[in-house]
Amino acid sequence: MEQATLKFIGILHGDINSRQDAPKNYHESARVGTLEIYPEYQEGLGSIAPGQTIVVLFWLHQASRDHLQIYPRDDRSRGLHGVFATRSPARPNPIAISELKVLARRDNQLEVSGLDIFDGTPIIDIKKKI
Amino acid sequence: MEQATLKFIGILHGDINSRQDAPKNYHESARVGTLEIYPEYQEGLGSIAPGQTIVVLFWLHQASRDHLQIYPRDDRSRGLHGVFATRSPARPNPIAISELKVLARRDNQLEVSGLDIFDGTPIIDIKKKI
Repeated sequence: MEQATLKFIGILHGDINSRQDAPKNYHESARVGTLEIYPEYQEGLGSIAPGQTIVVLFWLHQASRDHLQIYPRDDRSRGLHGVFATRSPARPNPIAISELKVLARRDNQLEVSGLDIFDGTPIIDIKKKI
Repeated sequence: MEQATLKFIGILHGDINSRQDAPKNYHESARVGTLEIYPEYQEGLGSIAPGQTIVVLFWLHQASRDHLQIYPRDDRSRGLHGVFATRSPARPNPIAISELKVLARRDNQLEVSGLDIFDGTPIIDIKKKI
């Protein structure tokens, strides 16, 4: 088996729609949005509550999967970098890791801050921060 | 699109073969192993070098994908927990995140420490730690 199938567990609702408008990463973001977890996965949220920091994995469905080297976003003069040595969205499996603060919860919806991810991006996992 | 296909970029060679023998997480592990990145993805490694800490995503191909609630590994008396509030390997998309220290590099092979992952587990991504 050299591949596997990911199932989307939810979708992000936010206000970021372009690379230009996106913070560089979650450490530098106070942008707010809502993680809508599909009802069939809601039981997995357990006791997640406001005030906690959670680790969220997104599937960057708009990112290129065909590049193994990229130019840094803020400085092309630094030359090409291997994608695995960066946090570029472009990579063979375009998964983003964000550490987000839970602001509020309503059933299967988590309001979070710290977003650098586009509106409409699929959610693939949530984990406890260690 | 409610699903996506992951491509395996490499495989872990290590000495952990059972849950009983696995450290609880990468913070509590000094176990050593080798990340073999398949030759067609080697260009993506760029300048990754000994001394760096890298973030590695594994696909836990032996984990259950059918449980949304689990008992904590070390204390069943604490009752059932939603998987998204834990670091359990069991979850709809069994992806593990490890922060590993690079000890040595030989072409497409990275010797790393900090492993809590079974020998033979597929690798799906490597990122810079931020």
